[in-house]
Amino acid sequence: MTNANPMSQSRTIQTRLVLPPDTNHLQTIFGGQVLSYIDEIAAITAMKHANKVVVTASIDSVDFLSAARVGDVLELEAIVTSTGRSSMEVYVRVRSKNLLTGEEMLTTESFLTMVAVDDNGKPFPVPAVIPETAEERLLFETAPARREYRKQRVKMPR
Amino acid sequence: MTNANPMSQSRTIQTRLVLPPDTNHLQTIFGGQVLSYIDEIAAITAMKHANKVVVTASIDSVDFLSAARVGDVLELEAIVTSTGRSSMEVYVRVRSKNLLTGEEMLTTESFLTMVAVDDNGKPFPVPAVIPETAEERLLFETAPARREYRKQRVKMPR
Amino acid sequence: MTNANPMSQSRTIQTRLVLPPDTNHLQTIFGGQVLSYIDEIAAITAMKHANKVVVTASIDSVDFLSAARVGDVLELEAIVTSTGRSSMEVYVRVRSKNLLTGEEMLTTESFLTMVAVDDNGKPFPVPAVIPETAEERLLFETAPARREYRKQRVKMPR
Amino acid sequence: MTNANPMSQSRTIQTRLVLPPDTNHLQTIFGGQVLSYIDEIAAITAMKHANKVVVTASIDSVDFLSAARVGDVLELEAIVTSTGRSSMEVYVRVRSKNLLTGEEMLTTESFLTMVAVDDNGKPFPVPAVIPETAEERLLFETAPARREYRKQRVKMPR
Amino acid sequence: MTNANPMSQSRTIQTRLVLPPDTNHLQTIFGGQVLSYIDEIAAITAMKHANKVVVTASIDSVDFLSAARVGDVLELEAIVTSTGRSSMEVYVRVRSKNLLTGEEMLTTESFLTMVAVDDNGKPFPVPAVIPETAEERLLFETAPARREYRKQRVKMPR
Amino acid sequence: MTNANPMSQSRTIQTRLVLPPDTNHLQTIFGGQVLSYIDEIAAITAMKHANKVVVTASIDSVDFLSAARVGDVLELEAIVTSTGRSSMEVYVRVRSKNLLTGEEMLTTESFLTMVAVDDNGKPFPVPAVIPETAEERLLFETAPARREYRKQRVKMPR
Ligand SMILES: CC(C)(COP(=O)(O)OP(=O)(O)OC[C@H]1O[C@@H](n2cnc3c(N)ncnc32)[C@H](O)[C@@H]1OP(=O)(O)O)[C@@H](O)C(=O)NCCC(=O)NCCS
Ligand SMILES: CC(C)(COP(=O)(O)OP(=O)(O)OC[C@H]1O[C@@H](n2cnc3c(N)ncnc32)[C@H](O)[C@@H]1OP(=O)(O)O)[C@@H](O)C(=O)NCCC(=O)NCCS
Ligand SMILES: CC(C)(COP(=O)(O)OP(=O)(O)OC[C@H]1O[C@@H](n2cnc3c(N)ncnc32)[C@H](O)[C@@H]1OP(=O)(O)O)[C@@H](O)C(=O)NCCC(=O)NCCS
Ligand SMILES: CC(C)(COP(=O)(O)OP(=O)(O)OC[C@H]1O[C@@H](n2cnc3c(N)ncnc32)[C@H](O)[C@@H]1OP(=O)(O)O)[C@@H](O)C(=O)NCCC(=O)NCCS
Repeated sequence: MTNANPMSQSRTIQTRLVLPPDTNHLQTIFGGQVLSYIDEIAAITAMKHANKVVVTASIDSVDFLSAARVGDVLELEAIVTSTGRSSMEVYVRVRSKNLLTGEEMLTTESFLTMVAVDDNGKPFPVPAVIPETAEERLLFETAPARREYRKQRVKMPR
Repeated sequence: MTNANPMSQSRTIQTRLVLPPDTNHLQTIFGGQVLSYIDEIAAITAMKHANKVVVTASIDSVDFLSAARVGDVLELEAIVTSTGRSSMEVYVRVRSKNLLTGEEMLTTESFLTMVAVDDNGKPFPVPAVIPETAEERLLFETAPARREYRKQRVKMPR
Repeated sequence: MTNANPMSQSRTIQTRLVLPPDTNHLQTIFGGQVLSYIDEIAAITAMKHANKVVVTASIDSVDFLSAARVGDVLELEAIVTSTGRSSMEVYVRVRSKNLLTGEEMLTTESFLTMVAVDDNGKPFPVPAVIPETAEERLLFETAPARREYRKQRVKMPR
Repeated sequence: MTNANPMSQSRTIQTRLVLPPDTNHLQTIFGGQVLSYIDEIAAITAMKHANKVVVTASIDSVDFLSAARVGDVLELEAIVTSTGRSSMEVYVRVRSKNLLTGEEMLTTESFLTMVAVDDNGKPFPVPAVIPETAEERLLFETAPARREYRKQRVKMPR
Repeated sequence: MTNANPMSQSRTIQTRLVLPPDTNHLQTIFGGQVLSYIDEIAAITAMKHANKVVVTASIDSVDFLSAARVGDVLELEAIVTSTGRSSMEVYVRVRSKNLLTGEEMLTTESFLTMVAVDDNGKPFPVPAVIPETAEERLLFETAPARREYRKQRVKMPR
Repeated sequence: MTNANPMSQSRTIQTRLVLPPDTNHLQTIFGGQVLSYIDEIAAITAMKHANKVVVTASIDSVDFLSAARVGDVLELEAIVTSTGRSSMEVYVRVRSKNLLTGEEMLTTESFLTMVAVDDNGKPFPVPAVIPETAEERLLFETAPARREYRKQRVKMPR
């Protein structure tokens, strides 16, 4: 295994048609269905980078900015943005597209932490990630601040 | 509609058997499946309180503390912890139980914000919530701090 | 393994949102979907009591007293009511709740016989069950009559 | 609509491959899955006879005589055996077949009562049924006894 | 294993109710859902003939002649029509039936090539097939021409 | 609506994790599952081009060149390659990727004909398509030959 992979190697795209069973009374998609798609693409993305089975350690807060309706298409895009020893931060963006009007909206975006594990489910080291474009570098360079922020959040009042 | 409901009126319990299609190579449940269960119980809980259709506005960050395996049972418990005009904060706790050994573990817990909507998907006022037990009061009284914290998070570095 | 467990140890609650794929033209839930939920909760309930994998040996007759519609919630409650050597009788009650009006109805109730099995699928002994409340005692004390009735039914005309 | 249909007009056959998501730890099918298949074929069978939407009023007790495993095929066969004003009794037989050995076993058989309903879910009259073969006549002639037995069962001890 | 089985031994029938999750905006079934049912019945049919696990090597072109709607029933019928060393040609016919009017239509028909495989996924010899009725003989005798045609198609312009 | 869209406007990518419920005994994906994914991406692709609901008119023959296993990823890519009055030819390519080794294989490729329909399910005119790259032009220029070939195939012996 190489010690570092270009960030683009993990880039993954997914296109999903919103179907009736994924929706509520108002025919808008359940938040839980979107979260499930986000987790699936994050896992594929992290596995492409690490060539290992991965588990989800955490997902940052998710704000649902707009509703997607039956017949819309969801386009998900994901990329590994930084790595620790066994953990990978994955950025996921979800846009919805109304196929009849062509209109596009941002549904949500989030960061997840995926951890590579061995056959016993124990954390396993992953290669580093090399950003190449300006957008990739931005995601890469802001990662330590997000990691710091995540450590703090366990102290939030409950 | 009354102006306030006891918090316990919304309390909801769900029990789910972890089945092979919900799991990865290691036979542990996908994070996305857990998130989907969390969203479903939060929606039911909020609808019980508001007697209205609801949509998910946001979910706070979720840390997956332990894995659940095929054959385990997930027990989800949820309750409305505080309300705004049309929004409700819902607390969800997920525990896994190994039915063969009886061992129980905390899988995760999270807060979601659900919004009651009318038939056009527009926000609709909800009753207030009245905490009655010590545990309910704790969840209720710490809600403003969490709400404040949520407002801040939009300013996190990206 | 102890020789007897309190009945309440097996008590299980499940809450299910009725979704479009579970329903017919009239948007009321299929009987088969309800039967499938009944079997799932009975299995979980019996496994909690026996700490063993279980299979369904039989389900008593089921009368569907009222229909549940898309958007309603089904609340299932189950408990082990009596035991044989390897078999357990499980009582399941299903109520539907209209979340918009708060109205509740009894959908159905039934008794199932679940059998604990070892890794080869052979029947395996289970602990006895100890009723503690008045309702539990009623279910426990009427069990022998139901068991007798079940044995007779194989002789019904065909 | 004719006043009576030959029994054979409703006869329906279904073949199902047992897949991993339908099974437990021992890779044998869940009772609930079988019940769900039974209800689906009973509904199709009754709709073929009545040319109306139908709902399940009741299912008689079901004994699971043998387990079906992943890779087996379930063969279901169903027929309307008698009619009331709006209700139809449907007989369903389920056999499992191991495709690798060719061995066949009886899994279970049961009688269901399906009721034809109009667009408001109200009971609607159905045609009578005319048995033609010896087997059909046997099922038809024993129906009144089963109907009688069903009425009694509401009085069983609880 | 015998060296040849009667064609009728593999004959398989499947009946499917068209449900909302299988359909698009116009409430007509997705082509992909029909293709999935065709492949499932072809696999069962070929396994009945070969008593072996099978994989799909190819499906001939499929024309969708009429739409099936929510509430219709699909009736699929399949039979092994000829064999090679390890491959079997399977004919599948799909008809839709409107249960409320009784009207029947041909949805589509197709030929698939299924290959029997051993536990390593390597092709494994299958018994020959013996046609008995006039219809079976027609399907059997036209098989070599279809096989020839299939070989040519790889040369089609792209 | 414009009279012609660039071909690239319809290009669609889909990434799917192969999960246990999609696979047979050998843990390789069912052909029917792949066909179902092919139809779904073809529908999205055609809707992106036509801004209309579409139905599947036909799918050309499909050869499954290699098996995909549990844990592999399927990458589907699709594009509208030519148009008639209301019909669109869509090319779909499916590759499988083993995430643990990085190895990629061609699973299959096929052409489908999708038809744009109005709210009554009647064919509706679609914009033309403008190829821009060398690969797009090749797909575009070979379309008339495929269309001719498709017309002939109805005459194949049966
Ligand atoms: C994620 C998990 C494997 C971590 O195990 P652990 O014993 O805590 O291991 P470590 O402390 O060595 O942590 C491993 C890595 O995960 C990171 N991590 C652990 N918990 C985390 C969290 N909640 N959020 C973000 N990162 C986390 C650590 O920072 C560490 O990163 P690094 O290797 O890059 O330095 C473990 O908590 C687990 O199995 N959780 C359940 C995962 C799961 O099944 N999710 C699906 C639904 S339940
Ligand atoms: C249930 C099953 C394990 C019983 O096996 P068996 O060889 O008959 O075993 P036994 O005669 O020792 O019976 C074991 C227990 O099951 C009970 N039992 C068996 N059939 C029963 C039935 N139809 N209804 C109620 N109880 C039944 C017996 O009374 C006995 O109870 P006890 O141990 O408390 O005295 C067996 O019939 C089976 O595997 N059936 C299929 C179960 C299944 O897979 N169901 C899901 C869908 S098919
Ligand atoms: C079945 C149902 C329509 C009967 O309605 P009702 O108001 O009781 O109507 P009626 O008393 O006129 O009964 C209609 C017929 O159903 C029969 N019936 C009613 N309940 C029955 C039961 N539990 N078992 C067998 N037959 C039953 C009656 O005998 C009568 O038969 P007939 O017309 O042939 O003489 C009603 O109970 C219902 O909607 N139940 C829920 C059905 C459902 O949604 N099932 C799916 C899962 S909940
Ligand atoms: C089908 C498969 C096993 C053939 O393997 P192979 O190494 O080419 O084996 P062979 O060349 O010995 O061919 C075996 C038989 O399959 C037939 N065959 C192979 N490809 C075929 C195709 N595209 N169409 C029709 N028949 C085909 C051969 O003619 C031969 O038939 P015969 O034994 O009756 O003479 C292999 O291509 C495969 O595994 N494909 C994927 C199958 C799959 O998983 N499908 C599901 C979705 S991807």
